[in-house]
Amino acid sequence: MSTRLVVIGGVAAGMSAAARARRHNPDLDVTVFERSGYASYSACGLPFFVKGDVADVASLIARTPERFAADGIRVCLRHEALAIDPGAHTVTVRDLRDGAQRTTPYDRLILAAGAQATRPAVPGASLPGVFTLRTVEDAEAIRAWITERRPQNAVVVGAGYVGIELAEALHARGLAVTLIEGQGQVLPALDPDLAVAVQLRLEELGIQVRLHTLLTSFVGARLIEDVTTRVLGRLADAAGELGGETLRVRGETLRVRGETLRVREVVTHNGSLPADLVLLGGGARPAIELARAAGIALGATGAVAVDDQQRTNLPDIWAAGAVGETHHRLLKRPIYFPLARAATLQGRVAGVNAATADWSTGGPARFAGTLGTSVVKAFGLTVAMTGLTLRQATAAGLVADQTTVTSTSRAGFMPGSERIQTRLVFEKGSGRLLGAQMIGGDEVAKRLDVVAIALQAGWTAEELAAADLTYTPPVAPLWDGALAAATLIARHIQR
Amino acid sequence: MSTRLVVIGGVAAGMSAAARARRHNPDLDVTVFERSGYASYSACGLPFFVKGDVADVASLIARTPERFAADGIRVCLRHEALAIDPGAHTVTVRDLRDGAQRTTPYDRLILAAGAQATRPAVPGASLPGVFTLRTVEDAEAIRAWITERRPQNAVVVGAGYVGIELAEALHARGLAVTLIEGQGQVLPALDPDLAVAVQLRLEELGIQVRLHTLLTSFVGARLIEDVTTRVLGRLADAAGELGGETLRVRGETLRVRGETLRVREVVTHNGSLPADLVLLGGGARPAIELARAAGIALGATGAVAVDDQQRTNLPDIWAAGAVGETHHRLLKRPIYFPLARAATLQGRVAGVNAATADWSTGGPARFAGTLGTSVVKAFGLTVAMTGLTLRQATAAGLVADQTTVTSTSRAGFMPGSERIQTRLVFEKGSGRLLGAQMIGGDEVAKRLDVVAIALQAGWTAEELAAADLTYTPPVAPLWDGALAAATLIARHIQR
Repeated sequence: MSTRLVVIGGVAAGMSAAARARRHNPDLDVTVFERSGYASYSACGLPFFVKGDVADVASLIARTPERFAADGIRVCLRHEALAIDPGAHTVTVRDLRDGAQRTTPYDRLILAAGAQATRPAVPGASLPGVFTLRTVEDAEAIRAWITERRPQNAVVVGAGYVGIELAEALHARGLAVTLIEGQGQVLPALDPDLAVAVQLRLEELGIQVRLHTLLTSFVGARLIEDVTTRVLGRLADAAGELGGETLRVRGETLRVRGETLRVREVVTHNGSLPADLVLLGGGARPAIELARAAGIALGATGAVAVDDQQRTNLPDIWAAGAVGETHHRLLKRPIYFPLARAATLQGRVAGVNAATADWSTGGPARFAGTLGTSVVKAFGLTVAMTGLTLRQATAAGLVADQTTVTSTSRAGFMPGSERIQTRLVFEKGSGRLLGAQMIGGDEVAKRLDVVAIALQAGWTAEELAAADLTYTPPVAPLWDGALAAATLIARHIQR
Repeated sequence: MSTRLVVIGGVAAGMSAAARARRHNPDLDVTVFERSGYASYSACGLPFFVKGDVADVASLIARTPERFAADGIRVCLRHEALAIDPGAHTVTVRDLRDGAQRTTPYDRLILAAGAQATRPAVPGASLPGVFTLRTVEDAEAIRAWITERRPQNAVVVGAGYVGIELAEALHARGLAVTLIEGQGQVLPALDPDLAVAVQLRLEELGIQVRLHTLLTSFVGARLIEDVTTRVLGRLADAAGELGGETLRVRGETLRVRGETLRVREVVTHNGSLPADLVLLGGGARPAIELARAAGIALGATGAVAVDDQQRTNLPDIWAAGAVGETHHRLLKRPIYFPLARAATLQGRVAGVNAATADWSTGGPARFAGTLGTSVVKAFGLTVAMTGLTLRQATAAGLVADQTTVTSTSRAGFMPGSERIQTRLVFEKGSGRLLGAQMIGGDEVAKRLDVVAIALQAGWTAEELAAADLTYTPPVAPLWDGALAAATLIARHIQR
């Protein structure tokens, strides 16, 4: 009998793991259990589906279950893993379509259960109209709410990357948007002075930004209105809203008139805001319930602890993606960093190792770690960062400094040149690059990637300044931002 | 008395050398002799000045002679260096404004005389209307010709980077453009199959492309016409054209009617083309006359030979920029590669070394060499390359192979996604990256730079595939072209 690999979770990490495992070992029997109705979708694309840039869900799916099946991978959608028994080597799953439970044996298990959106522990957080966004179903529900309820006033809670993308999506759909954030700046990972530039842009475009603002409660109201419900799966919910009547209707579209309960107001310690749509853009936390119950060890961040082979502490169990921790190359310790690229890379490592070797002897693939590279593009601005901020570097015991330059996206004399701010963090004395942050209107992400590679290669600012890179006036200034900053650092170091 | 540094040539390499030298040694007495009427200008910007993207010459000047003077650097424009006497440590220069000659002593000399445009050795190559483009004056003359003579049919000779930029400039100004090239493809440095994509785009936009086409002659005609001459400095030329009459007129504009001689036809071994404007976009060669007469050694490429400190064979003489050779990091031999970025970096190295140490003991700065990184953006396409093509790698004795992927500039499901072709060349067995070529509509240059850094860091495809880079759907696919290609290579190598 061929070796049975079970993967729990069918998004970035899980599907990468399954695909890579099967490719490395075509005899492997691979089953993926995914709780939602979709696998292999771009979670990062969901805000753009809400915005309307992406017309239909199908475009967000990289590979359908049928495509996976053709490659010998069984994908079970709407199957929730309830328990792992590491001793018996079994997983208990429930088919959410009919409630049936079964227990499936595994030889090797990859846990890629992802993260869960968190709802704040305040009254009214589960009112209709208050949404989180992790799954395709979440995104469909938000779109349906916008189409059917025609909300006017949206509140987005949390001004991190996702919060800002969601604010843009709702702004583009014509809603008045207020962005509230508990901390003192938007994009809390970014240096505060650079975050101010982002905030100014948001405000320029009509987004209300409220910092230092903590949620107290959500207040709902019962309204009489027409409700159109398109998706059969949501009928029961709609029925629940309609004063408790139970509806059993088969059909694509249902229009009913009734009393509905929905969010009307967001109350903060800072005053209250009218809202007929609330998106919780804030923190996700690792979905660790299964792991904890099974005795899989968690790290200091609260996510599943893994080694560089993506092994957990339990024999024959690997983990990858947002359920687990991610090793930071510069901090040399695990952080919680649930982004798609790291998830996919970790999934591949877990997949190769689970496919080719025993848990105890160890597999050939290693995850090299993250630099915390991240990017958001919204409201005509791109903000990207990699490595450490000066604050992080100093906290990590490094003797560091930073240099910031303002440059342009093209040669200054060319039309269409846009401003780009570049900040490089470096180790004093050696000039070794430690981090970078960039903000600009155009082509910022790949500029940041250039520094990310230099950083990963362990380069000094001097080496970066001397790099042989492309130059022509319509694509860059002769001394592009990172090169100009690196030159300044190198000159300073030489003295 | 302070040490006297003389720099011959005041464009990219020369002015970088002068500025860097003076910064490293503020006591240095620095004089720059520049033959043309402009120093510190962007030669790469000239095609965009011809096109009209750049309105006036002043925007192309990075720093004026007055700014340099304020930093203690004497810039002598319209001064031609006639001879170097290495024994006597003198340079003889002629002031082109009045013809006066003088001999200037130097303690240290940096030769940054640049390159000269070459005119093909065929009859009629110096006819009015046949232009080269190296200096601001050349660009002004071309613009004046377009404005005053209103040419209809342009022929651009040479389909390298500059030829293609010039074709775009003239196309944008409404001329019918034919691009002729002696070799069998446009952009001869690029792989032939990728060059076909560029050619198709040119032809789509109405540019006639004639490959394998060698010039035989230029044919002129005498025409009776009105000629408007705006620039006083060009009056004597205009007078010469007008049947030999000598005009002495002071004023900004002169309109005369007379017989003028100008190009009418370009004859090739492949047939002839009507032309009332010809731009020679082809090869430049190093301006080595001065060096040769002074006994400065040339390398195998015919340009001035330098070591990694930019020293020539003669004591107290350094060279930088397009007059000299450039060390290729992968080929490990000098090539002739007269691009702005290498020139500026070499200038800095020469400047630091000439400023801080004796020629014989050697200075602190080293030029790390080039990877042949280059880029052109025209007709809505960006074409960029770095390192070796497969042909070059094989010729250099490397056991190499290549992988090509077609990807998109953003996630495939996002609007505005454009096609990008990425080719990576790698060493078989090790997977070490050797080169990259990319073509696409959008944001190709910085994507290529990402690979250029990885290549310079000596990375393998596997290391690149695992790099922590930015990802968000509006800026890139999750597996951007270079990452997808690197992944394919890594998988292939692992087997």
